[in-house]
Parts: sequence; C-alpha cells; structure tokens
Amino acid sequence: MWAELLPMGRSSASGGYRRFAWTGVDLECRAWFKAQAEARGLAYEVDRNGNQWAWLGDPAAGDAVVTGSHLDSVPDGGAFDGPLGVVSSFAALDELRARRVAFTKPLAVVNFGDEEGARFGLACVGSRLTAGRLSVEDAHKLTDGDGTSLPRAMETAGYDPDAIGADPERLSRIGAFVELHVEQGRALDLSGDRVGIASAIWPHGRWRFDFRGEANHAGTTRLVDRRDPMLSYAETVLAARREAELAGAVATFGKIAVEPNGVNAIPSLVRGWLDSRAEDQDSLDRVVDGIERAAREYAAAHGIDLDVVRESFTPVVEFDHALRDELARILGKQTDITVPVLGTGAGHDAGILSGSIPTAMLFVRNPTGVSHSPAEFATEDDCVAGVIALADVLEGLACS
Amino acid sequence: MWAELLPMGRSSASGGYRRFAWTGVDLECRAWFKAQAEARGLAYEVDRNGNQWAWLGDPAAGDAVVTGSHLDSVPDGGAFDGPLGVVSSFAALDELRARRVAFTKPLAVVNFGDEEGARFGLACVGSRLTAGRLSVEDAHKLTDGDGTSLPRAMETAGYDPDAIGADPERLSRIGAFVELHVEQGRALDLSGDRVGIASAIWPHGRWRFDFRGEANHAGTTRLVDRRDPMLSYAETVLAARREAELAGAVATFGKIAVEPNGVNAIPSLVRGWLDSRAEDQDSLDRVVDGIERAAREYAAAHGIDLDVVRESFTPVVEFDHALRDELARILGKQTDITVPVLGTGAGHDAGILSGSIPTAMLFVRNPTGVSHSPAEFATEDDCVAGVIALADVLEGLACS
Repeated sequence: MWAELLPMGRSSASGGYRRFAWTGVDLECRAWFKAQAEARGLAYEVDRNGNQWAWLGDPAAGDAVVTGSHLDSVPDGGAFDGPLGVVSSFAALDELRARRVAFTKPLAVVNFGDEEGARFGLACVGSRLTAGRLSVEDAHKLTDGDGTSLPRAMETAGYDPDAIGADPERLSRIGAFVELHVEQGRALDLSGDRVGIASAIWPHGRWRFDFRGEANHAGTTRLVDRRDPMLSYAETVLAARREAELAGAVATFGKIAVEPNGVNAIPSLVRGWLDSRAEDQDSLDRVVDGIERAAREYAAAHGIDLDVVRESFTPVVEFDHALRDELARILGKQTDITVPVLGTGAGHDAGILSGSIPTAMLFVRNPTGVSHSPAEFATEDDCVAGVIALADVLEGLACS
Repeated sequence: MWAELLPMGRSSASGGYRRFAWTGVDLECRAWFKAQAEARGLAYEVDRNGNQWAWLGDPAAGDAVVTGSHLDSVPDGGAFDGPLGVVSSFAALDELRARRVAFTKPLAVVNFGDEEGARFGLACVGSRLTAGRLSVEDAHKLTDGDGTSLPRAMETAGYDPDAIGADPERLSRIGAFVELHVEQGRALDLSGDRVGIASAIWPHGRWRFDFRGEANHAGTTRLVDRRDPMLSYAETVLAARREAELAGAVATFGKIAVEPNGVNAIPSLVRGWLDSRAEDQDSLDRVVDGIERAAREYAAAHGIDLDVVRESFTPVVEFDHALRDELARILGKQTDITVPVLGTGAGHDAGILSGSIPTAMLFVRNPTGVSHSPAEFATEDDCVAGVIALADVLEGLACS
C-alpha cells in the first residue's frame, strides 16, 4: 500500500515530493485512495469540497468515528507528512478486522484536499470550506502562481466548483475525528517514545516588516550619509532569535524581498517576513512585541522608516480535553509505552475541525525532527506502533 | 540644449530616467548629440563601436584633446550622471569660441555608448571595446533580460555589429581625454567647493557569499535543532559595516537571494552579494578579509557551510599624474576657488581609457551626494562653474 504511493510526484532531482492540489499527480494520489477504499469494500464518496471519504457502516447513523489526513505536499516535501496518516488509517482498519472486533458506530477514512496550500497559498482549504471557516467567495479568489483560479483548477480536475461550501450536516454526523501525523519536531525522539498525543496547536502568525531607506550608489556614498535598510533588517533577524530563545518560542525570518536588489545599490526597501509561534498567547505577544520594539530602535538609529503589518494570525487550538483524555486512557491501558502529550507549532486539518467537532491527534516519532523536506522520516517499527495505537484508539471509540 | 534632453526617457511615475543602450530612447539621445554637433559645424562621425564623435579641426593631425561622457542611464537614474558631461562639453566649446581663442590642436566631444551597462550587465562597453579591454567574442555573448544579444540590439538600432572591436589607431591620435561628471558623493559639498579633480578610482570588487543550512519547518523545529543560514548572513551584514568603518572604506550587501524563500520555511540557502571599495588595495584586502573571517566564524557557530566567490574585481585606477597636475595648475591659476583632488568609488569610461591614453576627470558638486537616483542634483550655478572650469582646461590643453 505504502510502496504504491511512494513514486507519485517524487522529484528525481531533490528526492522530495511535489503533490500540489488538483494537479495530475494529486489525481494519481486520489485514484490510489479510491482503489484502497474499493479493495476493502468501503463505500467511497467525494464531498462537495472534493474531500474523499471511505465508509464502513452507515454514515447517516451518526456519531461516526473518522480518521485520516491528506495526500498533498509542500514543494520538495517528505514522504510522511500527510500520507502516513492516510495509510495508517487503512492499515488500522485492516488490523481491527483481523482482531474481528464488532463495530458499534460507523467509521470512515478521509483524505482532505489541499491541506498544505502549496498551490493557492492558503492551507487546509478542504477542511476550512467544510467547517465554514473559508467563504465560497474568498475561495473563488484563490489563484496559483500561473494565474489559474481554484474553481478553474477543480473543474479541470473533473470536480464541480459551484458545489463548494460549508457542510455542517456532514460534520454533525461525526462524533470524533482522530488524525495521525508524523511528528514535525524531536520531542518524541528526545523522550524516547514512539507515539504521542497532541494537546494543542500553538498560536501562530505572520508579520511583514518593511524597512524603507534610500537607494544610493554603493561605491560612492559615505557610510555616514547612508540610510541602508539592510542593516536594520539584519539587526532585527538577530533580535528575533534572542527574543524567541528567551521565551522558549520560535521566530523565523525565512522570506525576504529587496528593492532594487542590485549588487552596487544600497537598497531602498528590505521587506522581511516573520513567522512566530509560542505555547500560549501571552508568550507569543511578548516575543513579537520584543522583536518589533527592537526593530523600531534599530530603524530609528539608521534613519529608516519601518512599517509592521500582521498578515495572518491563528489563535491557540486546544484539542478536545475529554477526547484527549480518552485517548490517553486507551493507549495507557493497552500499550506498554508511555504516551506523552505534546504541543505543536504546525497547523493541521484537525486544528480547523476542532472548532466544529471533538478532534484529537496522534504523532509518530521522527528521529530527524525535520519536516517539509525529504529528510523527514519515521522508522518502519515506529510506523507500525502508530498503526497499532490508532487501531487501539478506533477500537476504543467505535467498538465500545 | 539641456532642456531638449530633459524629457527623453523620463518615467512620469518615478521621475527617474531609463535610457538603456540601443533602445528607442537611446536613439533619441543620440539624434540630439548629432544635431548639437551639426548646429556647431563640427564634423560628426560614429566609430566602429557606436561611440559618437564631434570634431573641431582635423582628427588625423594627432595629439587631439577630447572631452565628453555618456547619455545612457541606470534604471530610474538621475538627469546628471553622464549628460552633464556631454552638455558641458558642448557648452565649454561655445565658451571658447566666445573667447575667440586660437586652437592649436584638434578638439572633440564624445558620447560613449552603453556606459552604465544597465541593459547587458557590463559597464563601459563602448570604451572597453575601443580600448581593447573587451574582446569581440565576449561582446557577442552579452544578452539583455529579454534574451536579445548586443549584436542584435546594435543591428536593430541601425549599427553594424560586425564592425566592433579594438580601435588603437583612433586612440593613438588622442593626446588627452577629460571627462566632466557630477560628483557621486558629498566631498565637494563638505569642502565647500564647486569643482574638483579626480585623483584615482578606488579598487573595487564583488563577492558572493553562499550560506547553506538546512530547510525545515519554521513552526516545529526547535531553535537548537536549526541550521538557519539567515542568522549568519545577518551577522555578516553587520560585520561588513564595522570592517568598512574601521578602514574608512565602503562595504554593502545590496542584493540577496533566498531558497526556498517561504514564510514558514527555515532557508536552505541565503546568498548575499558584497560590494566593497577602498582607497587602496591593502585597505580593500583588509576589509574583505575581515568580513570573510567573521562570516566563517558565524557560519561555523551555526553549522552553516559557507562559500565565498569573488565575482569581479577592478584594481585601482590612478589618473595620469602629469595631466592631473596640469589641470590643477590651470584651474588654480584661472579661478578664485580651491580645486580639491578627490578619489572616487565609481567606475567611468575615463577609468577604462586611462590604461591607453592620458586621462583626467572633473567633478561638479552634488549637494545631495545621491547618485543613480532621481535625487542626484547640481545647482545651475555649479553647472556653470563646471563649464567654465572645463573651458579653462580645454583652452590650457588645446590652445597653448
């Protein structure tokens, strides 16, 4: 099952994956999902937003237990982020059938469309639309780098873009959603555990820092006459690291745009984007305020005008406490390993859905801690431990 | 004369000029040059490399005195860089005729093609070709951003690209070349002088710093697990400023390229270009060595691989000492202002030709000190002082 999926959308140059929503490679992955559902005699359906579902039992019965993740990737992403959750869901179902358990609730495996947002710039489009967290109007405005709109891309892929929109009735039939995901950090590696339970998704946001100085000749302008915004930018990058260290948070300047960006020109504009995340809102506010305060001091010292704009923000997501405790009880009873409860800095479909239905996440150990890169990894033993843990959870939730 | 030239190639949006070699705007400027030559009864000719000449007297007589500059511009350049030298040359000739001087040597005004290199990426193409400092083979390889080659661009503009090449015979007939230029710094403004004489063009070069780390998720990767090349880059930018300050030199990081350049991605590569210039070779070596040493320390501390490549280098240009002293004598005798002798960090056609013939430069005060920007400026009074100084110099050289 895993082996079939591996070659799809893999770049022979980087070894990374390029599975972007509604492209030919995405359609290959989606055909794989449908074939897996049919091979197991599950009822296959596609919802109005293009998310794929494979049902065991009657969806209309309500209080369903759903598991799954996504199959798309970031540019040059790894093999595990997304697909591990979908493959593990089918494998857990196989395990439960081998255990000959009696299901008391309907159960489904789901593949949410366009989770990474690599093509249209917005993450979790499939789950956002379903949960009513993205309006149809705003979804219609999304375009990719080539100018192709989301509706046009869906149409080309054979889906009806006029059907998209919130789907509260579908969500009302779900009692619990559990997403298994490869860990995007090294907490499990450091604690020596194979599997962990998510407690929360850290609040996170993006801020744009525009440092405006004066373009001038790099050869003839005396240092004292310069208003060089690159200097304030550099000082701010280092301040961001210091503030994040102090608060036990993360802060990253990973994207930059410079004008005129010429070798012999002092820049007129250096635009840097800050991504910052912390365990709670107070810590995040402290980090970002500290970085902005430092940036304003540096800018003033160099005669630089500074604008700071918050481009996006997602508050903390606390996963459903009752469901989280239920998972801890099930896994604590049935396995011989400790199951730590972890926060995470990354967004997920589970985070989007947690506002609508009880939601939980399981993480599988990633010894490299690397994410969104071909270096992300999980050992076969740990993947099997993840499948068993997920099977235990589904049995506990759907067979009780 | 100045007023006719002002509207050509001016952007109404930025107020800056976009006069790129062999474009329609450049041809307008060249038609203006031809009209100025003809209006004065000068013998107009275009040399094999497309440089324009306007002769008073017989070029074949030898030991000619030549003055001029260029008419092309950088993107969004100012009105003075180049055109001030050409306009002042014609105005100085008018002044000498008004003085009814007797010329003992042939005199010419020249407009060198493609000085700024804004279109094909190499500066001083017209003078380089003439001086044999650019091979025909290499010139044929030059292409602009749209993929148009230099030969094709010359052909489209009505010139014969098969004719280009070194022109030693032409240079052998020239006894002295004097270029007047707006100052690209504030030395004259600070010393309170209207006009200055160039001593030398500082040695200068470009170095590419490639900081390679590891791409990773900006939300989930702990600070201690990161290999973020943006941090080493930022530290190096600040080190460059410190080293340049210590040495009385200049050092600038004005161009950057980041991979993957995503807001939520720790970069795998930060590539920064250093432009540095200093009064002499020793100082420049000290500055660049200091920056590279600091960069290597920072890179090692963050687990970053660093490559430093020197992309281009131009050694110091000392203008002809005898000609420089002659200019100082003429201007010291005939004007009531002091005429300081200045170094400059910028390249010029005069710098290229100084390897072949005795060459000198005059600078006119620029109160903003700004260059390659619409803010570059000279007052009308200072421009007139420049014309008088140039006329004095030409009279001293060609009428003695």
